[in-house]
Amino acid sequence: MKKPPPRRQPPAGAPRAHAEALAALNLRPEDPLRGEDAIIALLAPLTEGYPGAFDLKDDCALLAPPPGTEIVLKTDPIAEGIHFLAEDAPEDIAWKALAVNTSDIAAKGAAPLGYLMALSFPDAPTFGWMERFASGLKAAQTAFGCRLMGGDTDRRPGPLTISITLAGTVPQSRMVLRTTALPNDRLFVSGTLGESGLGLALLRDPGLAAVWGLPEAEADALIRRYRRPEPRLPLAPALRQFASAAMDLSDGLIKDCDRLLRASGVAGRIQLARVPFSAAAKRVAAHLPDGEMRLITAGDDYEILAAVPPAKAAGYIAAAASAGVAVTDIGTIEPGPRALVLEDSTGQPLPMPDRPGWDHF
Amino acid sequence: MKKPPPRRQPPAGAPRAHAEALAALNLRPEDPLRGEDAIIALLAPLTEGYPGAFDLKDDCALLAPPPGTEIVLKTDPIAEGIHFLAEDAPEDIAWKALAVNTSDIAAKGAAPLGYLMALSFPDAPTFGWMERFASGLKAAQTAFGCRLMGGDTDRRPGPLTISITLAGTVPQSRMVLRTTALPNDRLFVSGTLGESGLGLALLRDPGLAAVWGLPEAEADALIRRYRRPEPRLPLAPALRQFASAAMDLSDGLIKDCDRLLRASGVAGRIQLARVPFSAAAKRVAAHLPDGEMRLITAGDDYEILAAVPPAKAAGYIAAAASAGVAVTDIGTIEPGPRALVLEDSTGQPLPMPDRPGWDHF
Repeated sequence: MKKPPPRRQPPAGAPRAHAEALAALNLRPEDPLRGEDAIIALLAPLTEGYPGAFDLKDDCALLAPPPGTEIVLKTDPIAEGIHFLAEDAPEDIAWKALAVNTSDIAAKGAAPLGYLMALSFPDAPTFGWMERFASGLKAAQTAFGCRLMGGDTDRRPGPLTISITLAGTVPQSRMVLRTTALPNDRLFVSGTLGESGLGLALLRDPGLAAVWGLPEAEADALIRRYRRPEPRLPLAPALRQFASAAMDLSDGLIKDCDRLLRASGVAGRIQLARVPFSAAAKRVAAHLPDGEMRLITAGDDYEILAAVPPAKAAGYIAAAASAGVAVTDIGTIEPGPRALVLEDSTGQPLPMPDRPGWDHF
Repeated sequence: MKKPPPRRQPPAGAPRAHAEALAALNLRPEDPLRGEDAIIALLAPLTEGYPGAFDLKDDCALLAPPPGTEIVLKTDPIAEGIHFLAEDAPEDIAWKALAVNTSDIAAKGAAPLGYLMALSFPDAPTFGWMERFASGLKAAQTAFGCRLMGGDTDRRPGPLTISITLAGTVPQSRMVLRTTALPNDRLFVSGTLGESGLGLALLRDPGLAAVWGLPEAEADALIRRYRRPEPRLPLAPALRQFASAAMDLSDGLIKDCDRLLRASGVAGRIQLARVPFSAAAKRVAAHLPDGEMRLITAGDDYEILAAVPPAKAAGYIAAAASAGVAVTDIGTIEPGPRALVLEDSTGQPLPMPDRPGWDHF
């Protein structure tokens, strides 16, 4: 009986075949990309030769976690009109689709490895749009250290949707959970909050920049936080070493912190005066009826909330600083059934907002 | 310094907490499920205590492949109006969402382990709809041997969409690929083709049953193939042992076989007279202008196409029969650049259909 052929051996020259097939189509940027095969050909270079991606010639991907590691999986689709706007650059849409998933993986102390991507188009995309989208993905995956492993493309009514499932690796038993915060832990948040929500407001109503007295550079910086979130990957090792629990902030501090408390079965207290905001966001908040409350409920921050035992707080701050990320102590975990108290600078509880954060329903 | 708390230890009583939270809402079947948390509470029992699902209290899942195995990943979203119809039962929609992904995993010789599910609703679902959807998922995951590990829920315009990413395990280096078919391999297909496409046609135009002279039971059986595909999981071990390449058929035999040939860099020949059809499908084909060609281009079959070396063909047939799956030898792989020839019973090439199979574009 003949020995079976060696497996995982695509035919020689496969990547070139994709490129040649695409070149043969002789497309102009404005031409629609008809057929899934043309889209696959355009995306195939994003596999970067990863063996388990089979050059996108198979319909499944193969993942072999390095010895001593486990796989962390996350799926978070983004849709036009909700997570990005129709006029956003294809490069930015691609970046955000991968960044929102990378943010979750980072919060778990893991490192991105590879992703599957399901694309749903209401109409066939143009060659030019897909080329720019692919270049945005390339930039994002290079920044985050992962590659395309597989996916699916279809056409259906409704908004353009990009559904990425990202796989990361974490050393065995070292994933940082949401369910393990402990009483007396300090609550830390990375970076500054609320800018992305202000950026979205500016995109929806550009006249707001003048109302808020924002110089163009500051308005652009707020918009950039909405369009190109920077996942806090450099924080992952510090989280593994020091945090008892962590999660990324995507629906706003209040709502997400409440989730962490509930998952861990504990209560918590946040001092609003200690929550970090950028100078621009603070100035804008002075113009808003809901002030800083808006900044902690708008969502789309992609910063990391971590519970850190008091004895490890100094170590966490130092490790984060070495990684180039500022982290701020904003409160404390307390015993008892889930309850989040937000305090003013005198220690008085503040009323909770009617809308604690982003909810799709 | 205090020892960190043990990881992967959700707080005691967490699953009960979900059930209690849901009971406290006191919902009637027609009430809309508002809030992602209510949907999560309803889906949490589908994790069946899988440790890496964290009772859906984390936003990532953890996957630790058993020693000696690798992970096969597949994502294939389904959307209302395309893969299922608005009037389909929630139980059937759930079944199909998991079945289409399981079919791919089976074709790779792998066994389903767990899945992430992203749900996109145009409007909040009712409690009753979600309960039925969850019960359909429960039936499917029990039949296929996997469980829910995580996911995401959002609301957006457009059709209801269920995006499942399924992870399966396969013994190391034993995944069955698309790229490794060899000249002289026999081409085998499982089951019978084309019934699902006829079922969809009947759903769209119930009057066709009379036109086609179909008894009600036969019409129902065709519709059932569209709504509740049965992935060929029992075939996975036989594929690992005997096939040099395989894939599942979702876009029709002609189109998918062409993909296998192209991926492997080979040509192939199929004898139409040998392609297996059910008695009902054959009789319907006699009424159709495109006859049996319709049956091999309609798609949604979820049968398995395999290339098997001639010396192993008898072994494959016997192993498939032991697993309760009929497989039929329909043609051969040939050397040379990709080209698929479809022959009539006299060996004459048949003209290829204008539309070789399902394409979203």
